[in-house]
Amino acid sequence: MENGSKKWGFQANKSLSTASAVTVRGVLNVLLDNLNKEDTRQLIPLAHGDPSAFPCFRTTTVADEAVVDAVRSAKYNHYAPTVGLLPARRSVADYLNRDLPYKLSPDDVFLTLGCTQAIEITITVLARPGANILLPRPGFPYYEARAAHSHLEARHFDLIPEKGWEVDLDAVEALADENTVAMVVINPGNPCGSVYSYQHLQKIAETARKLGIMVIADEVYGHLTFGNSPFVPMGVFGSIVPVLTLGSISKRWIVPGWRIGWLVASDPNGILQESGVVESIKGCLNISSDPVTFIQAAIPQIFEKTKEDFFSKTINIMREAADICYEKTKEIPCVTCPHKPDGSMFAMVKLNLSLLEDISDDMDFCLKLAREESVTILPGVAVGLKNWLRITFSIEPQSLEQGLDRMKAFCQRHSRK
Amino acid sequence: MENGSKKWGFQANKSLSTASAVTVRGVLNVLLDNLNKEDTRQLIPLAHGDPSAFPCFRTTTVADEAVVDAVRSAKYNHYAPTVGLLPARRSVADYLNRDLPYKLSPDDVFLTLGCTQAIEITITVLARPGANILLPRPGFPYYEARAAHSHLEARHFDLIPEKGWEVDLDAVEALADENTVAMVVINPGNPCGSVYSYQHLQKIAETARKLGIMVIADEVYGHLTFGNSPFVPMGVFGSIVPVLTLGSISKRWIVPGWRIGWLVASDPNGILQESGVVESIKGCLNISSDPVTFIQAAIPQIFEKTKEDFFSKTINIMREAADICYEKTKEIPCVTCPHKPDGSMFAMVKLNLSLLEDISDDMDFCLKLAREESVTILPGVAVGLKNWLRITFSIEPQSLEQGLDRMKAFCQRHSRK
Repeated sequence: MENGSKKWGFQANKSLSTASAVTVRGVLNVLLDNLNKEDTRQLIPLAHGDPSAFPCFRTTTVADEAVVDAVRSAKYNHYAPTVGLLPARRSVADYLNRDLPYKLSPDDVFLTLGCTQAIEITITVLARPGANILLPRPGFPYYEARAAHSHLEARHFDLIPEKGWEVDLDAVEALADENTVAMVVINPGNPCGSVYSYQHLQKIAETARKLGIMVIADEVYGHLTFGNSPFVPMGVFGSIVPVLTLGSISKRWIVPGWRIGWLVASDPNGILQESGVVESIKGCLNISSDPVTFIQAAIPQIFEKTKEDFFSKTINIMREAADICYEKTKEIPCVTCPHKPDGSMFAMVKLNLSLLEDISDDMDFCLKLAREESVTILPGVAVGLKNWLRITFSIEPQSLEQGLDRMKAFCQRHSRK
Repeated sequence: MENGSKKWGFQANKSLSTASAVTVRGVLNVLLDNLNKEDTRQLIPLAHGDPSAFPCFRTTTVADEAVVDAVRSAKYNHYAPTVGLLPARRSVADYLNRDLPYKLSPDDVFLTLGCTQAIEITITVLARPGANILLPRPGFPYYEARAAHSHLEARHFDLIPEKGWEVDLDAVEALADENTVAMVVINPGNPCGSVYSYQHLQKIAETARKLGIMVIADEVYGHLTFGNSPFVPMGVFGSIVPVLTLGSISKRWIVPGWRIGWLVASDPNGILQESGVVESIKGCLNISSDPVTFIQAAIPQIFEKTKEDFFSKTINIMREAADICYEKTKEIPCVTCPHKPDGSMFAMVKLNLSLLEDISDDMDFCLKLAREESVTILPGVAVGLKNWLRITFSIEPQSLEQGLDRMKAFCQRHSRK
């Protein structure tokens, strides 16, 4: 490194740029850089799961006012305990207990900076030389990025589109060995919009138990379901297999920018405690940043006072949007949606490149779509499935229709003659 | 790992518990666990730098209302860009530019979760196999904890108590080799309460330049000075040596629980850009949690509208408290304060164990003091200097007097007859 005649002794850790290139945010940035600035039409963002900008997805004033009260009280400007404020931990335990056959205690709950930091801490805690973790394909690439950063080997099992994106449990059994520490289950599913049945979740738990591995249950989209299957938390099977439950208010309350979530030991047998995992989580939290204290303080009020109306309004819009997405993509010959989404904010559709003339792959599709139509869609490669597309439907239904119409026009224009 | 007859294949990463044990928070927790619950007197907390609980250190309503406005606008519930919101970055650049001979641009500024995450990211970015970093002794043990976690070798140079805790620059030169990437300077000083002169900072910059290493300037206590030396940011010497400036609103605005800070390339020659450090910072931010979006959005209003009165009121109380601390500790024979604090929130005092009867070391002193007097003080070992004590004076002056009186009584009771 030279600066004129001067030599400098430092270099950057280049692996960071590489690890982050595969995240959803990394790909999103590339797409946004590729927009045509002369296109006067409004950008239609179908690439990421953050509908908070749309008026119909505005959060409840209950949540706003809980935060405002906490700020104005001036009682929560201090550093929080590294595990989180006790009333907030108790509140999260109570919230999750509604759906569990046993009782979590506040000591089982650790507050995190959204689900993102819950993932970061989980991966950091489980990483040790030689260990491996089983991740779904398609999945959420932040797991891969953090695993790479922590030198934890990632092995992938498939989700099966024809079976509502259920886990290929034979593949899980074939991948696991004595160095496997955990498998990740994202339910409701990102990127597939799947919602697993009680029976399937139970089979996952039994398989994990047989293999002697824990289940990491990413439930950031918990309760965002609008099909026939209700949401069943993985923690229901905590006495079969120890579960680390990851969640957040980001999606259900539509406040991803508030950065508050949780990491919970759903483990009535205390195996995570005995094995030192809980102690390591605390150690990791001691050297990590905490969620904002006054937002932690607002959690009890947010949980207790949010009305059912707010949730059902959101769910109704999402159901309508999922319908639009499924019906509209049916009209586009070059894509196929194998499973109508029942939950989360996404649908996965398969791209048939043979019907397109000058599109080389999913990334090329998304780059050209962004440039020509001011519509962003996530290429499947970003979530582990090349030549598929992840479409976010959780936006204002009218904009969604417009976006999919533009995508249809784009596909027609590029179809093989 | 057994649970009845069942074997589980996971183990935790034990190094996390070890790394976190040496943090200020880790030691604090031990002290708090050691309090005598039957002591009806109020705990006097002289162990950590968070005066936000005291009414005289309540933040300005300007800051509260900026946050309230941002929440109620409902415009900032979304995920923030990984580098931070542009208006907030611009605002931080403007704020720092007031004291610099050149102009930072918003692109030089990255928003972080307080100064804590700025340290985390800096250490992560600089860690590579074989590299080492020079840290002050005494210092802030979070640097050691993060360096250990990232496998970056820490080497220590002394701060010299007789010279107002200035950096021993000969030691810096002796420690550095071709694998040294940076040196850390904390000014105003934690734990010593020192404020470095322009001349000393310039010498540090020249030494670092000669060695070809960057300077990491931890200025989380920036502007909190009340002695003869004004605060001079290290960035002033950015054209001599590339500087990474770390800061936060936590201390000056007394809102550590708001978790907002910055990491800034104070480097008019663009060396950090050229060497890839800036790119690595962005990569690291892509796989890290972000500060809360609405708090980022409040930053411009907080910076523009906070009145000088608020700052001067805080400074006046701290000056009074530093005086009390210095005068009161003079009355305690077994401690010596080599340098009256000019800034930050702390004083370092040396413990003369030969004058005490049944105290084995600084940790023993602090544990017994906590138990017998409900006063917490940080043992020097937690900041790298065994048999010293770090006293936080930034509390309500009356409580400070009480706390130091209790400490005096404790010392008298334990003095060698």
